[in-house]
Amino acid sequence: MTALQYLREIDGIGRDPVRGGHSRHLLDDADRALRDWFTTTAKNLGLDVEQDRNANLWAWWHPADGPVYPAVVTGSHLDSVPGGGALDGPLGVVSALDAVARLKADGHVLERSLAVVVFAEEEGARFGIACLGSRLLTGVTPPETALALTDSAGHRLRDVLAENGVDPAGIGPDQDRLARIGLILELHVEQGRQLAPRDEPIGLATTILAHGRWKLTITGRGDHAGSTELDSRRDPVVAAADTIKAVRRAAVEAPAAAKARATVGRINVTPGGTNAIASRVELWLDARAEKDHDVRDLVAAVTGAAERAATDEGCAVTVHEESFSTRVAFDAALTERLDGVLGGVPRIPTGAGHDAGVLAEFVPSAMLFVRNPEGVSHAPAETASPEDIERGVVALTACLAELA
Amino acid sequence: MTALQYLREIDGIGRDPVRGGHSRHLLDDADRALRDWFTTTAKNLGLDVEQDRNANLWAWWHPADGPVYPAVVTGSHLDSVPGGGALDGPLGVVSALDAVARLKADGHVLERSLAVVVFAEEEGARFGIACLGSRLLTGVTPPETALALTDSAGHRLRDVLAENGVDPAGIGPDQDRLARIGLILELHVEQGRQLAPRDEPIGLATTILAHGRWKLTITGRGDHAGSTELDSRRDPVVAAADTIKAVRRAAVEAPAAAKARATVGRINVTPGGTNAIASRVELWLDARAEKDHDVRDLVAAVTGAAERAATDEGCAVTVHEESFSTRVAFDAALTERLDGVLGGVPRIPTGAGHDAGVLAEFVPSAMLFVRNPEGVSHAPAETASPEDIERGVVALTACLAELA
Repeated sequence: MTALQYLREIDGIGRDPVRGGHSRHLLDDADRALRDWFTTTAKNLGLDVEQDRNANLWAWWHPADGPVYPAVVTGSHLDSVPGGGALDGPLGVVSALDAVARLKADGHVLERSLAVVVFAEEEGARFGIACLGSRLLTGVTPPETALALTDSAGHRLRDVLAENGVDPAGIGPDQDRLARIGLILELHVEQGRQLAPRDEPIGLATTILAHGRWKLTITGRGDHAGSTELDSRRDPVVAAADTIKAVRRAAVEAPAAAKARATVGRINVTPGGTNAIASRVELWLDARAEKDHDVRDLVAAVTGAAERAATDEGCAVTVHEESFSTRVAFDAALTERLDGVLGGVPRIPTGAGHDAGVLAEFVPSAMLFVRNPEGVSHAPAETASPEDIERGVVALTACLAELA
Repeated sequence: MTALQYLREIDGIGRDPVRGGHSRHLLDDADRALRDWFTTTAKNLGLDVEQDRNANLWAWWHPADGPVYPAVVTGSHLDSVPGGGALDGPLGVVSALDAVARLKADGHVLERSLAVVVFAEEEGARFGIACLGSRLLTGVTPPETALALTDSAGHRLRDVLAENGVDPAGIGPDQDRLARIGLILELHVEQGRQLAPRDEPIGLATTILAHGRWKLTITGRGDHAGSTELDSRRDPVVAAADTIKAVRRAAVEAPAAAKARATVGRINVTPGGTNAIASRVELWLDARAEKDHDVRDLVAAVTGAAERAATDEGCAVTVHEESFSTRVAFDAALTERLDGVLGGVPRIPTGAGHDAGVLAEFVPSAMLFVRNPEGVSHAPAETASPEDIERGVVALTACLAELA
């Protein structure tokens, strides 16, 4: 089966009837179905599949005489944002499976082991920390931090792992596994629109913006929307509106070189009644910029504005950092080598985080991007043409043949 | 049992562990439990309980020789806002039951029939239209409008009614029942704080502000929070923030005589991912003012601001009126008569809607308010002292003795 056929095979899993697109979150029904599908599919290709201590899946292909480490690793993730597109994550996984099948069909003689990896909770949509699987594996996120996480329904990560065959006591840095990874090459649908204007189907990643997530909690006083006079209100929704305006303003006013972007895409209002002044608003800031300190400046500006807005309305605000990822530069030598295989493709920076970005600090890391004609991602409208998906598989196959 | 004992008896029903307080919405588990409790309790007091065609409950006490219409009606509602207080609604019901018990214990000889009523979906928390039960009964809301309603989980009112023994084909204006109502006296916990500064435990209502609910839907383009540059964003959350600011501003800038208040207490962001620019925001405007045209002016100002904000951000906005209630003046003669019974109490206006306000257009209508020391309502902090609750029952009992 081809990557495109695999995508069709899993398209019905985790459809979101309310938001559109797909909602596939760590170890929910959809994610479990996808993980089972991956396991079965990889086994059918003759790969050895295992789940590591941090809920990541690994499908191994070893040379005839047995494992040769450090291995070449490719893959991506299967989880999605709420109402996400079909490609962000799965494209890298199905392309890797397709590439392995083609190498096998071509009689490729492996010189070192090759693994197709599925990282857990890349989007952080369920427990709040993006790239959780690779962060735990590398030790970037300590296990204590992860074990303290709960999802919005109050389920603890600890329990969700235990119910799915992952020992909570065993999560965390995995030096043995890390030592087996020689390099990682992740294929991903492009996010943003840099390839289409150049009429190029494939690109190689240069850098990932520094980025992080902050949860702001604004507390006011719940009351009746009809009987509470304006001057006695302490309405956190009003302070939240000021804060959202400040988020956009902070990004717009940042130096152009910072390439700053800041977003509020998630808001919880408590209690959430039409005729009730809210008592509490939680909102999440996603902030990104070229340098770590640019992001810090941005968050400081938003925090200051939120505090002023809260004070003006008689409210209080707290700011909690959920995650922070330093700027990533992918491996220049590896990228150069792959560019040689591909015959010269555009080199493009990205604002999106990836597991390959987390691993870049530990092993040579590179990324292939497949053209996204409209540039839309994290939304149902995310696309790539069937022809470009095929070109991506061809490119990945050629790169893996060179590397392994 | 006293009103206070009844309140304790039902306090465990519909507790909201997330928001605090109580969440009791039309015909959900909590509301059904409360309706069953009311039916049993009223029957134990010797009342005849029936559910009318619009899901309102009526507990009848007739003179010894049989029904004498038009009747004296008292009562309130048992449903709540999300995370609401324990008194808004239930206090009027339990006080009515207690008053009936006291009249019976005193050997009061009824001259006309007396009913304790429980109106359905007063808060409109589940299906969006406040006072739905009284609006349907009186014809203020046409049955077609109600039957088209769905709750946030997608359940249709039509189906919820059918599953609970209410024929959807039978809802709507009920002239026979309306003709049996001679007058209505609703007791309610005060919302706002007008009695405490005067050191008075009981007040009589004069007017209800004109009020209504509007749903604003702002549509943008979902995309990736990291890879989408600022100048290509169409982010409905940003336009929503401008709109929320405009809501407060419109109320502040309205003429003082309008006593305008406007609130956004409920917001839905789709898809709601931390790292995703939203594609759609729904927010609800609760707007109130002295005169109908003041409310219309307020909504027009908000609509204009929302349209400008949406245009600035490349978004679109639609505004849907969920309900509108004209200004209510309670019956002056009835209120005067009750004031005579009570020996002179404060007359206070309110910004909160009530079923007695809906009925005021059709039958003489009056309201008793029981002091709320902090003035907080639609929130768990809503209170009244045990002594004031007792004073409320004594006042209601005296009024009913006079009227029936």
